[in-house]
Parts: sequence; structure tokens; C-alpha cells
Amino acid sequence: MNDTTAALRVDAERLRARFDALAAIGATGDGGVHRPALGQDHLRARQWFLDEGRAIGLDTHVDGAGNHSATLACGQAGAPALLLGSHLDSVRHGGRFDGALGVLAALEALQVVKEAGLELDTNLEAIDFTDEEGTHLGFLGSLAVTGALTADELGRPGSGVEVFQAALAGAELTDTSILSAARDPKTIAGYLELHIEQGNRLNAAVADIGVVTGIVGLRRQKVTYIGRADHAGTISMTDRLDAGQGAAGLMLAARGMVMTAFPDSVVNIGVIAFEPGAMNVVPERACLTLEFRAPVAEDLERLGVVLKSLVRAEAKSRNLEAEVEEVDGIQPVQLDQRAQGALAGAATRIGLKQIAMPSGAGHDAQAMARICPAGMIFVPSAGGFSHSAREFTEWDDCVNGANVLLQAAVGGL
Amino acid sequence: MNDTTAALRVDAERLRARFDALAAIGATGDGGVHRPALGQDHLRARQWFLDEGRAIGLDTHVDGAGNHSATLACGQAGAPALLLGSHLDSVRHGGRFDGALGVLAALEALQVVKEAGLELDTNLEAIDFTDEEGTHLGFLGSLAVTGALTADELGRPGSGVEVFQAALAGAELTDTSILSAARDPKTIAGYLELHIEQGNRLNAAVADIGVVTGIVGLRRQKVTYIGRADHAGTISMTDRLDAGQGAAGLMLAARGMVMTAFPDSVVNIGVIAFEPGAMNVVPERACLTLEFRAPVAEDLERLGVVLKSLVRAEAKSRNLEAEVEEVDGIQPVQLDQRAQGALAGAATRIGLKQIAMPSGAGHDAQAMARICPAGMIFVPSAGGFSHSAREFTEWDDCVNGANVLLQAAVGGL
Repeated sequence: MNDTTAALRVDAERLRARFDALAAIGATGDGGVHRPALGQDHLRARQWFLDEGRAIGLDTHVDGAGNHSATLACGQAGAPALLLGSHLDSVRHGGRFDGALGVLAALEALQVVKEAGLELDTNLEAIDFTDEEGTHLGFLGSLAVTGALTADELGRPGSGVEVFQAALAGAELTDTSILSAARDPKTIAGYLELHIEQGNRLNAAVADIGVVTGIVGLRRQKVTYIGRADHAGTISMTDRLDAGQGAAGLMLAARGMVMTAFPDSVVNIGVIAFEPGAMNVVPERACLTLEFRAPVAEDLERLGVVLKSLVRAEAKSRNLEAEVEEVDGIQPVQLDQRAQGALAGAATRIGLKQIAMPSGAGHDAQAMARICPAGMIFVPSAGGFSHSAREFTEWDDCVNGANVLLQAAVGGL
Repeated sequence: MNDTTAALRVDAERLRARFDALAAIGATGDGGVHRPALGQDHLRARQWFLDEGRAIGLDTHVDGAGNHSATLACGQAGAPALLLGSHLDSVRHGGRFDGALGVLAALEALQVVKEAGLELDTNLEAIDFTDEEGTHLGFLGSLAVTGALTADELGRPGSGVEVFQAALAGAELTDTSILSAARDPKTIAGYLELHIEQGNRLNAAVADIGVVTGIVGLRRQKVTYIGRADHAGTISMTDRLDAGQGAAGLMLAARGMVMTAFPDSVVNIGVIAFEPGAMNVVPERACLTLEFRAPVAEDLERLGVVLKSLVRAEAKSRNLEAEVEEVDGIQPVQLDQRAQGALAGAATRIGLKQIAMPSGAGHDAQAMARICPAGMIFVPSAGGFSHSAREFTEWDDCVNGANVLLQAAVGGL
């Protein structure tokens, strides 16, 4: 890489103008946006993105899964494309940075490369994937590109078949068109994604950039403690078999154990219920869901075993019964070493403080890693807020991330 | 009391025959009964009770609150009545001992006194109170007798106004008739009740009879812990503010504190919910109800204060907020010393092992204590089961209880 190329930077003002224009589409008035996938404001945002791409002389394209792309033929004829992107949909009443920043930074990178007249080893493609947030079916767009999506899965959308099919029709998509969006991996040189962190690790490390090493795997265990329903007034404290005590013991023990023995993992109990659920009856059953995530498959497996033994220990010490049912899960993904190296090298060239870190949330890069070298960088989230209008990233951090994406793209994998 | 009177005992076989006949009314086929107040089977059971009373030559009477009575004029003209009784209604799918034993033992006592031709200081009345279990309005019958029930309370039945009014109509009762059931306290010499324990204290003490010292008071505090909703995958274990952890800490701490510092009290957390209540979101709010009971008012008050401070301590140590809302409550009742003495003396005469103990559940005696000397005895519940078909009391224990009731009645208060 020559000095001129290494000195290329995004136009921060231009990027900001586009960021603000995009944030106005589906704006909720409190700094957030409401752009659920395939809703009117999401479709307007996607159209705006294509218009911006065309206005700066890029080719544009919408595939059968609704993924919107702007492409720059900066490589030799027949060269594969390096994809840069993220998503323009949001959760309901979400933030304006999540996904949007990555798509805009990709578009800006293509514009900078085009204006510099660079010739690269690959063509470049800025891509906006469909339904990353799972309003209907999480990672629909990126999974479709990898060919991993099946007709069976399209028949079981989280939003329900009727809602999903109506949304597809509104975007001129069909199950058949979605399944046709799979690409030949040979045509894709790699995938790089800039995203906000949605957590506090970068703040804690006072770092500018997180180079993502992998995306955590997730498993869920439905736990039921079984005691005995008794009149809460007549049964003594000693004699009662209170299923709620098992649940309480597990909640505290699981947190302590994970913090001590699995520092890179997390556990959450977000749902709980007691049965029969009356104020004056000792809980006979306490049902909760353990959701745990680990960056590597071995940890995820081991964590599952240790949590199960905790469940049983907390039951045994209280003469309760316990049942554990494995609900669902997804294996962790390790991101490509070359892609990590390219992103880390770019951050170093720019002089930014970086750390390597896992991603605790799923991203399109998790799907794309199935068929190509995939890499991701995070920029800090103020306060760690995510999936709410409180989500915020300092503009300097946004620009830093865009510059790292640009430099990684021009450096190549 | 002469030796003949002191030697009087119930006819165990006759009592057993009536017990089995009554248990067949509304029998659920698994040893339990389903006789919610004012339902068809409850009304049938009450009619059967009146028929039995009439068959042995007792006067019978139904008051404006539906309370069914059989009376024996064994006192001088104008003497007050000593009431012996309990209730014939059950919870939904309840047991065949709860309430029924007390009414049948009362009827048997009157028959024994009648057959012995005894003259006592008081007349005797076997009474079956309406809706002790609160299918519509808990302690309706006994509260009506005390004059404590108000038109306002009758307008807010737990079963809803329409259901309640339909049930009243089916039993030929009205709000007005219920309010007319109040009696002049001067006409009541006292109230004695035999009931199954619904707990395990008598079993633990290997005692035959529990002489009830008082009926516990009850208070309820609705507790809400407030943390922060975060993406359960991206927020580190250290940074999350998990409201569920406060709830878990409180559940364990409240149990431990009560067992250590309030050995005569109990606490229950029978209801809990997390918000937003998603598997992948850290709980922002954890809502639960603390229900606690204590035998004396000072303990109930002090327990409320200590629990509140526990709530706050568990919040503070986790940087959570906590709110406590007082929901409802009822003050404890101390049962009459003379009534306790009469029941204890009777148990001693019969040679039964007795203990003094509080009642953890509410009973009609709690209402009656407002207007007359009230006393209660418990007999053991096998396994402590209550409010279910599993409820069981050994027949010898039932007979023991009936004999103590009889002996206390003939001994007078």
C-alpha cells in the first residue's frame, strides 16, 4: 500500500449529512427510529440508500431476498467482490446507529475509493441486508446469500406466516425469490462490517475500536424446580418445600459462577414464573430460562454442563426436584484471522487504540462467515445502551469506525 | 363437674357414619370434596345437616346470612347460647375434613348432651357458617353474625357482583338478609371450634391436640426491584443492573431472617414476574409479593419493618432501586383465655397430649372473637396437607378432637 492510499480518509461531514438524513426516516422524535424490517419506513430507507448510491455513480441492485446493494467495479473484470455492510432495519422503537452506521460507512468507503480512482484486487459492494433484527426471521438477508436458508424455515417466521407473507408481498419478494438469492462463494472475496458495540467493554478499556474475534454462541435451558404447594400460613418455614427458593439460589449462584469461572461468558434469567402463583400458597413449581453465551464452542458446552450441575445442587440442598430442558441454541462463530488482521492493521495505521473482543450479540457477519472470510469492528456505545432511543455513539467514534472500514477495504484481505 | 359428666364421650361410630355420609356429598372420587360456598353440593350438604339435627330432636334454623344451626335448649330459659361449629363449604377440589369435622363434632356433642339429659349454664348451638373459604367473600357467615360486615363489603365480593348475587339468589339470600343476621353479643356465651391443623406442628410435637392461642395476622407488601433492561448478550456481567438478582437475594434473605429472628412467623413469596420478560433481555423490573404472618401485632409490625429494610439492603448492594407498596392485611387475634383454659382442661381430663399453638390460617373463630369468648382446637393433619384431596386426619384424632369439644362444652367457659 502506498502512502496516498494509506492516507485516504472518509469525508466526515458528508457521512454526517447522510447519517442525519437516514435517521429522519422513521424517526420517533426522541432520537430513535422505528424501522421494523419490510415496513414502510424501512422500505423508504432502503430506497433512499439506492438513490444515494446512484447519485454518486455506483451501480445498484436488489436481490431476491431484498438485500439492497451499491457496487463499484474497482477490480479487474471477473474479480470477486469484497462486501461492506450491515442493515437498515431496526427493532421496534430502536436506535439510529444500530446497523445504519455500517451501511453508510460502506457507501462512504465506496465513494472515497471511486473519487480516488483506485484499482483494487476486488470489486467493492456496499450491502444492506434484510431483517437482521428478526422482525420476521432474523438474518434473513445474509442467510439467504449464504444459501443456508431453507423453505422449511421460511414457513416458520417468528412474526407468523400471514404477517410475513404480507410483508414480503409489500416488498415484492416471495419465498422462491428469497431462496434464489444464494450466491456462489467464489464471487465473494469477504465481508467486513462496522457496528456499534451495544455494550460497555470499549468504554471500560478506553479503546476506540474493537476488532471482533468471534460471535458468541448461545444456548437456552428451561429449568423447573418442583417443591410442594402448601398453605403459606399453616406450613412451618422448616417443613415447606418452596420451589422459589431453588430458583432464587440458582439466580445468585449462576451469576457468581459465570463471573468467576467463565469471565468471557454471560448468563441471563429473563423469564420466571411460579405455580400455582397465589400470594398465599407456597410455590410448587418455579420455572425460569437460563440463557448463556460463550465465545468458543468448548466453553459453551462446558458452561451448559456446569449450569446443569448448579441447578441440581441448588435443588438437592433444599430437597427439591429439578428438571432441565434444552430449548435452542446456536454455535459460536470464529471470525476470519485475515479479516481480523486487515481490520487491526487499518486501526493501527490510523493510530486508534484497539482491543480484540468477542461479540455478545448476533450479526450478519455470523451468517456470512459460513461462506467467506468475515470480519467486524465495533465502535463504543455511550452508556452501553442498545435497542432503544437512548442508544448513542459519539460522532468521532463513528468516523473512526468508518475510516477503519475504508482502510481495511483498500488494504484488502 | 361430676364424674358422670366428665366421663361423657362422643359415639365414634355414629360420628364416623355421619362423616362418611357428608363426604359423599360433592365427592370428587379421589377422597376429596368439591363444595364451593352456595353451590349445589354445598346447599345439599347444609340441608343434610339440618335433616340430621331434626332427626335427633334438635331445633333447626337458617339465619339471614345462610348460617345453618341446630340448637339444644339445655340451659335455663333466656340463657345465652354456647356456639360450637365450623363450615361445610370447601375450596375448589378440597379435602373432606376441613370444616366438616368441626360441624359434625358439634352436632354429635349436642346429641350426647341431649341423650344424657344434662342441664348446662348455656344452651348449645351447632352452627355451619357460610363461605368460610371465601369462594365469594371470606368468613361471610361469621362476620355477618358479629355485625362487622358492611353493605360496602358486600358490594365488592371476590367472585364478582354478578356471580355473588346469582349465588345468593340460589340460596334465597339477599344483601339485606345478610346484614340482618347480626346478633346481640349478650345472647352468645362463646364460640368453640374444632378444626384440622393444616400444618405439621402437632406431628412434630407428637401431640394429639393443639389449643389455639391466637390466629395470626397477615400483611402483604408488593415489592418491585428496578434495574436496567439491556441486551443480555452484549452487556457484561459486571455492568448489568439485573432486577432479578435483587428479587433472588430477597427471597433467600427473607426466609433466613424470619427463621432466625421470628420463629413464630412465616413469610411467603408466591408470585413473581420479570419485565420486560424476554429470555434475551436483562430484567429491568422484578415484581414479587411478600406475604408474612405473625401471631401478635407487635411482631407483625416489627416484621414489616425488618422486611422493608431487607428489601432495601438487597437493592443497595446491587445498585438497584426498590419500591415497597403495602397491599392489604389483617391484625392477629388473641383467643379468649377462659376458652383456652376450658379446652386445655378438657384435653387433660381425657388424657390427651396437648400443645398451645397459634393458627397460621384464618378461621371463623377469628371473626367470632370480636363479640364473644372464642376458642379453637386443632387435630393433626397427616403430612400437613391442606386444601387438596390429599388432606387426611387419622380417625382416632378426629374422635379425640370431638371429645375435647364435647368436654369443653359441658364444662362451660
